[in-house]
Amino acid sequence: VNLKDIGEFGFIERISAGCLIRPEGVVQAIGDDAAATVPPAGEVLLVTCDLLVERVHFLRDAVSGVDLGHKALAVNLSDIAAMGGTARDAYVSIAIPESCGMEYLEAIYRGMKTLAAEFAVNILGGDTTSSARDLVLAITVTGSAPADRILRRSGAKPGDAIGVTGVLGDSRAGLRQILDGRLPATPAENALYQAHVRPRPHLAEGRWLAGTGAVHAAIDVSDGLSSDIGHISRASGVGIRLEASRIPVSDALIDHCRQRGLDPLAQALAGGEDYVLLFCAAPDAIDRLAKAFADEFGRPFTIIGHTTATAGRMEIRDPDGRVRPFAARGWDHFRRQP
Amino acid sequence: VNLKDIGEFGFIERISAGCLIRPEGVVQAIGDDAAATVPPAGEVLLVTCDLLVERVHFLRDAVSGVDLGHKALAVNLSDIAAMGGTARDAYVSIAIPESCGMEYLEAIYRGMKTLAAEFAVNILGGDTTSSARDLVLAITVTGSAPADRILRRSGAKPGDAIGVTGVLGDSRAGLRQILDGRLPATPAENALYQAHVRPRPHLAEGRWLAGTGAVHAAIDVSDGLSSDIGHISRASGVGIRLEASRIPVSDALIDHCRQRGLDPLAQALAGGEDYVLLFCAAPDAIDRLAKAFADEFGRPFTIIGHTTATAGRMEIRDPDGRVRPFAARGWDHFRRQP
Repeated sequence: VNLKDIGEFGFIERISAGCLIRPEGVVQAIGDDAAATVPPAGEVLLVTCDLLVERVHFLRDAVSGVDLGHKALAVNLSDIAAMGGTARDAYVSIAIPESCGMEYLEAIYRGMKTLAAEFAVNILGGDTTSSARDLVLAITVTGSAPADRILRRSGAKPGDAIGVTGVLGDSRAGLRQILDGRLPATPAENALYQAHVRPRPHLAEGRWLAGTGAVHAAIDVSDGLSSDIGHISRASGVGIRLEASRIPVSDALIDHCRQRGLDPLAQALAGGEDYVLLFCAAPDAIDRLAKAFADEFGRPFTIIGHTTATAGRMEIRDPDGRVRPFAARGWDHFRRQP
Repeated sequence: VNLKDIGEFGFIERISAGCLIRPEGVVQAIGDDAAATVPPAGEVLLVTCDLLVERVHFLRDAVSGVDLGHKALAVNLSDIAAMGGTARDAYVSIAIPESCGMEYLEAIYRGMKTLAAEFAVNILGGDTTSSARDLVLAITVTGSAPADRILRRSGAKPGDAIGVTGVLGDSRAGLRQILDGRLPATPAENALYQAHVRPRPHLAEGRWLAGTGAVHAAIDVSDGLSSDIGHISRASGVGIRLEASRIPVSDALIDHCRQRGLDPLAQALAGGEDYVLLFCAAPDAIDRLAKAFADEFGRPFTIIGHTTATAGRMEIRDPDGRVRPFAARGWDHFRRQP
């Protein structure tokens, strides 16, 4: 099948199958000027957008269509998770260069639809266009949450415990493997690869954290721990004290770093695209939360430090006990990279 | 000011000013993982997306930043208009190549914000990234409407009157001028140019039509009259009979076509990007509607034909009285263009 033969509307028809998997509340799906849905009564509407551009976010010959589709949707779902919300509907816009074949495009939608179905998310619309050179994916995801239970970056209080819902740095290591042209040869290398190409949005974890009433702020780790904790610090007007020895890293990352003479801690701090949740919670509730979280999810979250009253001061205590300042060193799309 | 100096977050800060112009119902604006708003009680949520790609939808050296920003938002607002909705919030994602300077970017946002303010639309989020070569704008707009009053493509009944809320073909003529490298030299040429670069979303008209209860179906003319009436024909299962002599074209378009040996009717049928509303309404109500519309908006809508019971048959009666079939000849992003 060739795009030039089936045309824009033929393409839309082809990809529309399997997009509506939770019909309740859907008044108009794909096929009109706009989608129409009934918003959940008494909840706020959450909206998030991500733009993925070829040769910036991905290389078409280095990532399968299925993985690209999965990740493009996963990063949006992760933003809804970070607000403590339930993901509802996705809108997928795509700009397609002539060099991109139908097989790759159908694989993208397969990757998205598989993940969408897992979280009961409909694909209800989008836009389809040609592109002069680069493949572009622009996804918008809507979600909802009780108004008094959304998790923002701005709610942290001094003395809050800082937790993360998973390990850090694996995704960056997986990207390094890909850029080295190295196919995963061991289970450990495959774990790093999967962390990069198939991140799991922590939607259930986000809703659970929001539901406790004891979590004051949250963000998903997309730019990198140091950068994302910086967002909370700035938005909440608190300082940050991290404990280096507590930052959770995987054995796979430690191996990866040993082989390359890298510091796992630096990878965990600056890596990015981890898509775990980083949150601040009331210190007197944190032990109870930790136990209940482990009971619920069968794995613990990790306390990696606490907030302080000194707005803007970000410090980390190294394993040798020395305290040093750290700066946000995550990804910035426009700055000259270090 | 240089993007490399201020960085991604500096850029976001710069463009965020003036984005929140209707704070009611906004729980979280730009600055968190997702925006949060209170959906209007008892109404359905409308969502529409458009993707604009450099060298496909626009040429950066042929369109000002202000015009590009205006149009990028206008085409989304037009989709909400076509549903009979009220536009509420916009989400703007942008992929920026190194070759694109801050002045042009700020002009894009100025164009968007001016139009947004006119229709009380907030800009509540989006995504900001670099691009390898082409500037990309991906905009999502939310809106709302009473559930029993949305206008779909699928509601037309046989015998409905077909109306349009404005002239057709001007935008395509304006584009031809631009592609010819011709700056507007007369008021007429300027009108065509403006129709192409500054389309007016017919939001008030769409809401008004929906509110009458007598309008069965609507679409905005984006792909071209013949293509967009084809969407209504297919979605509603009706046939189409247009009256060539009634299709409204401007004097400016007639002049433009005379100078170039073109047929204004063909331009009106296949032009596209007109962003007027095309609608089907109960025949027994149409005279009353026409009068009330003219009273409300100070200009008439135009009846250009009617629907028939022969699903899929699309015909037009030429000025000489002969009836001929016509096909959808609008823009298709992937097909070989005629």
